[in-house]
Amino acid sequence: MASNQEEEVKLFGVVPSPFVTRVDIALNLKGVQYKFVEENLGNFSDTLIKYNPVHKKVPVLVHNGKPVSESRVILEYIDETWKQNPILPSDPYKRALARFWSNFIDDKFSGALRKLASSLRAKESNQESIEELEVVFQFLENELNEKFFGGEEIGIVDITGVYIAFWFPVMQEVSGLNVFNNEKFPKLYKWSQDITNHQVVKEKLPNRETLLAYFRARYESLVASK
Amino acid sequence: MASNQEEEVKLFGVVPSPFVTRVDIALNLKGVQYKFVEENLGNFSDTLIKYNPVHKKVPVLVHNGKPVSESRVILEYIDETWKQNPILPSDPYKRALARFWSNFIDDKFSGALRKLASSLRAKESNQESIEELEVVFQFLENELNEKFFGGEEIGIVDITGVYIAFWFPVMQEVSGLNVFNNEKFPKLYKWSQDITNHQVVKEKLPNRETLLAYFRARYESLVASK
Repeated sequence: MASNQEEEVKLFGVVPSPFVTRVDIALNLKGVQYKFVEENLGNFSDTLIKYNPVHKKVPVLVHNGKPVSESRVILEYIDETWKQNPILPSDPYKRALARFWSNFIDDKFSGALRKLASSLRAKESNQESIEELEVVFQFLENELNEKFFGGEEIGIVDITGVYIAFWFPVMQEVSGLNVFNNEKFPKLYKWSQDITNHQVVKEKLPNRETLLAYFRARYESLVASK
Repeated sequence: MASNQEEEVKLFGVVPSPFVTRVDIALNLKGVQYKFVEENLGNFSDTLIKYNPVHKKVPVLVHNGKPVSESRVILEYIDETWKQNPILPSDPYKRALARFWSNFIDDKFSGALRKLASSLRAKESNQESIEELEVVFQFLENELNEKFFGGEEIGIVDITGVYIAFWFPVMQEVSGLNVFNNEKFPKLYKWSQDITNHQVVKEKLPNRETLLAYFRARYESLVASK
């Protein structure tokens, strides 16, 4: 308790964001006590803008008054500040691979999702983005050789990948897609079950029904646009 | 010499790439001996594709047969593998800031350049991308409080920023733009001189005339397209 009296950890976030939830999960894994400061999506507070003037985005972690932005930068900061239950491996080569695959998820998976949203908005074929998603899932399927990407314990790729494991099935349900399933990607599908049922992760996931309602509203506004 | 007999370090790259040059600079800073394997831009070798099947891009660093891709992942790998002359600070908060600004350059500066290229191709106004570039330079101008972003010694932000310091002036010269100069961004401009004249950097920069010729050809093909 002594250390908690000296430390003040705040996480500025919004509930439906997979980028915020990965920080929640990392702090939970480390056993760090923190205060979640809920921001209003689309109308961020002056405090948030002050802490992240460059991107004006959540999540922002504020540790003893000092802000850190960008979810993967925050994950590394957490791992270097609180050493217990490492998020990254200790071997430099394994660390490089973990960073590579974690970046891959944000780059290629998020990229394909953006393309999917834009094809819905433009009422164009979503074939290209679906193929991109399949390529992403196939690379990850091939890469997964243990229970988690981190081995027997969860690591940065697993935490980043919760976006795929928990958010994407909700998006699929809303949009009627069937890209990610047990038949096509059996290892990745099993992993998605294991990671979302992992105690440290489960405790920090948003309510599925709330997320469904959120994405239903977004989906309807996307297909109704123009 | 004993360690060099055990170690084999190869860098797969192309000469005009700022992403490849940052790896050259980092290896030079560390005093690591390596072999530069020149790839053919637009027609990468099977070896390169085998080493980087995900992105099919240079740079790829191959250390004792094990490939690492993506320039910023490679820089961190180099820093963790060869400890002398650190590229990242040791304090976790300063490390987070260094990662943040290094990502910022690749995200916002590269993003604005892509937009600039696409407006040239479409023969549309480049006003928006120029404003984005100015915002990028202003943030960096405000952030620069010592000789280098890394302090008195160069660090990851400086190495990443060579893209701005050396490549952008060449691009400006080719396209007739005047966005980055001593009047508007005096600290950043001085930094651009200091970093390109730093011995470790200077030794690894491509020939300016070659780069000019390369970008002149690219510029002409962009404005001639359609």
